Amino acid sequence: MSLLVVGTVAFDDIETPFGRAEKVVGGAATYIALSASYYTKDIKIVSVIGDDFPEADLQDLRTRGVDLEGLQVKRGEKSFFWAGKYHANMNERDTLDTQLNVLADFDPVLPASYQESDYIMLGNLTPSVQMRVLEQLQRPPKVVALDTMNFWMDTALDELMEVLKKIDILTINDEEARQLSGEHSLVKAAEKIHEMGPRYLVIKKGEHGALLFAENQIFFAPALPLAEVFDPTGAGDTFAGGFMGYLASTDDLSFENMKRAVIYGSAMASFCVEKFSTERLKELDDDQITERMLRFVQLVNFDAKI
Amino acid sequence: MSLLVVGTVAFDDIETPFGRAEKVVGGAATYIALSASYYTKDIKIVSVIGDDFPEADLQDLRTRGVDLEGLQVKRGEKSFFWAGKYHANMNERDTLDTQLNVLADFDPVLPASYQESDYIMLGNLTPSVQMRVLEQLQRPPKVVALDTMNFWMDTALDELMEVLKKIDILTINDEEARQLSGEHSLVKAAEKIHEMGPRYLVIKKGEHGALLFAENQIFFAPALPLAEVFDPTGAGDTFAGGFMGYLASTDDLSFENMKRAVIYGSAMASFCVEKFSTERLKELDDDQITERMLRFVQLVNFDAKI
Repeated sequence: MSLLVVGTVAFDDIETPFGRAEKVVGGAATYIALSASYYTKDIKIVSVIGDDFPEADLQDLRTRGVDLEGLQVKRGEKSFFWAGKYHANMNERDTLDTQLNVLADFDPVLPASYQESDYIMLGNLTPSVQMRVLEQLQRPPKVVALDTMNFWMDTALDELMEVLKKIDILTINDEEARQLSGEHSLVKAAEKIHEMGPRYLVIKKGEHGALLFAENQIFFAPALPLAEVFDPTGAGDTFAGGFMGYLASTDDLSFENMKRAVIYGSAMASFCVEKFSTERLKELDDDQITERMLRFVQLVNFDAKI
Repeated sequence: MSLLVVGTVAFDDIETPFGRAEKVVGGAATYIALSASYYTKDIKIVSVIGDDFPEADLQDLRTRGVDLEGLQVKRGEKSFFWAGKYHANMNERDTLDTQLNVLADFDPVLPASYQESDYIMLGNLTPSVQMRVLEQLQRPPKVVALDTMNFWMDTALDELMEVLKKIDILTINDEEARQLSGEHSLVKAAEKIHEMGPRYLVIKKGEHGALLFAENQIFFAPALPLAEVFDPTGAGDTFAGGFMGYLASTDDLSFENMKRAVIYGSAMASFCVEKFSTERLKELDDDQITERMLRFVQLVNFDAKI
C-alpha cells in the first residue's frame, strides 16, 4: 500500500552534550519517510522547501522509493530551519532559533498521482495545513494518522479539534495527552481522546516507551535501554514512520498487527538516536532491524507459568 | 523458604487529591510483609515499635504467617511516624512531618529462630542498621536484597557503599540509580552499580515500570496503566515484598524466574495504589492476583513474526 507523508523537510542545527551538527537535514517528513522506507518502497511526500536544499539529499530519498512530486520547491526562498540544544539529561531541549521561511505560507497541493494512497501520515504541522491535505482527498483513505504537539493545543486548539474528527490514529506524548484531555491518568486521557475522533491513540513516552490504546485494549512497548543516546532529534517522527510504514506494508489493522507496528516504530526510534540527524537511518539493513526486534522480544518476554 | 524482612513498622498521615487518612498503619516492613504473605507463609520481621501500636494490626500480621519475635516493643515510647502530601500528579510528594521516635536509637536484634532465613529483604533504613542485621547472621543466606533512597546517598554514602558490597539485589528508583552511579544512562548506571556489589539491580520507575539488570541481561516490566491511583504510599515496598516473596517461595534465582518475580512485584504494587494505606493489600485473593498477572501478559505480549 502507498504511504502519503505530509510534514516538514528542513534544516536543523543540533547541539547535544556529545557535539554539534550544523545545517543538517531534518524535518518530520524526512524522518518519517526514511524510517518508513525500510518497510515500503511506495512513499509520497507533500512538503515545501527553498532552493537551498541539496539535490543529493533529495536524490537519496528518491532512490529509497520516495516520490517527491508533491514537494514544492520555492525559488529564491529558504527552507524551514530549527536550532535546538539538548540538556545533559537529553529529555529536555531549548529551541534556540526557528525560521519558518517557506513554511510561513505553505499551501499543500496533492498531485493527482497521490490520490491512490490508502495510508496517510500527517506529520506535526499547523492543523489547518493538515486539514487542507485531507480536504483534497477524493476518496476516503484506509487510515489517517496524525502527529501534533502542545504548541498547536496552545495556539490552534479549535482547528486541531476539527482535524481530530477526521483521523484514525493520533500520536502524541504523555504530557500532550494530559493537556489535550485534561486528565492526568493516561487511561482516562485515552478515553476522552477516543471521543474526540481517533479510534487509536499512541502515547509516546520517550525513554519510557509507548502505549497503544485501541478498542478497549492497551499495549505497552518499552524503549530499548541504551548506553548512549547521541541525538534524540526526530525520534518521534522516526517512530511514526516505522509504525505507519509497517502498517502500510502489511495492510492489516488488527490489534495484533498494530502491536507489531508499535514495536517496529520503537525499534526504528532506537536506531535514530544513535547518531546525529538522519545519519543512522540511512545505513540500516533488514538484518539489523530483525536483530533489534529480537532485543525487544527478549526485553519484555516472560513465561507467566499460570 | 523463610523470608526475613527488616524495616519500619509505623504510622502514616497521608493526604492525596482523593482524601486524607490519619495515623494509618504503614512502614516498609509492613508493606513488604503483607505483599510477600501472598507467596510465602514463613516471614520473619525485625523492627521496632512503641507501645502505641494496635494489637489488632499485629495479630493480623501473625495470622498471615508473619513471625514478630524480632519486633521490639518499646514501653512508654512512640512508633515511627511520617506525614506526607501528594501533589496532583501523584508522582511527587511533600513530607510534612517525620518523627523518628523509637527509630532514633534502633538496634536490631536477630532472634535465634531467624537464623534459618535464606532470603533477606532489607527495607529502606539507615545503612548502618541494615549492616547490623547482616553482621548477626551466623551463616551466609542465599539472597540479600536491599532497598535504599537518595537520603542515605546524601548523608551516609560510605556506610551505604559498605553494605552494598554484602548484598545480591539492590532496588532503587531511576533518579537514585543515576545519583549513585553518576551516570545518566540506566544501562551505564547498572554497570557501575554491579561493580559496587549487587549482582542484580532492580530500577523502579513508578508509573513507567521497572527494569531488572542481571548477568548482562535486561528485563523490562511495565506498570499497569490505571484509571485511578488513589495512594502511592508503600508501592515500592509492596513491589519488593511481592518480588522477594515470590523468589523465596520458588527458591529459583534463574533469570527467567526473576523476571516473573518482577512481574509479581509489579502486580502487587498495582493493587497497593488502589486504596489508602495497606487496605487493598489485606483483601486480595489468589484469583485476583492471577487475573492481574494475565493483564500484564496481555499488556506486553506480541508476536514478532520474525
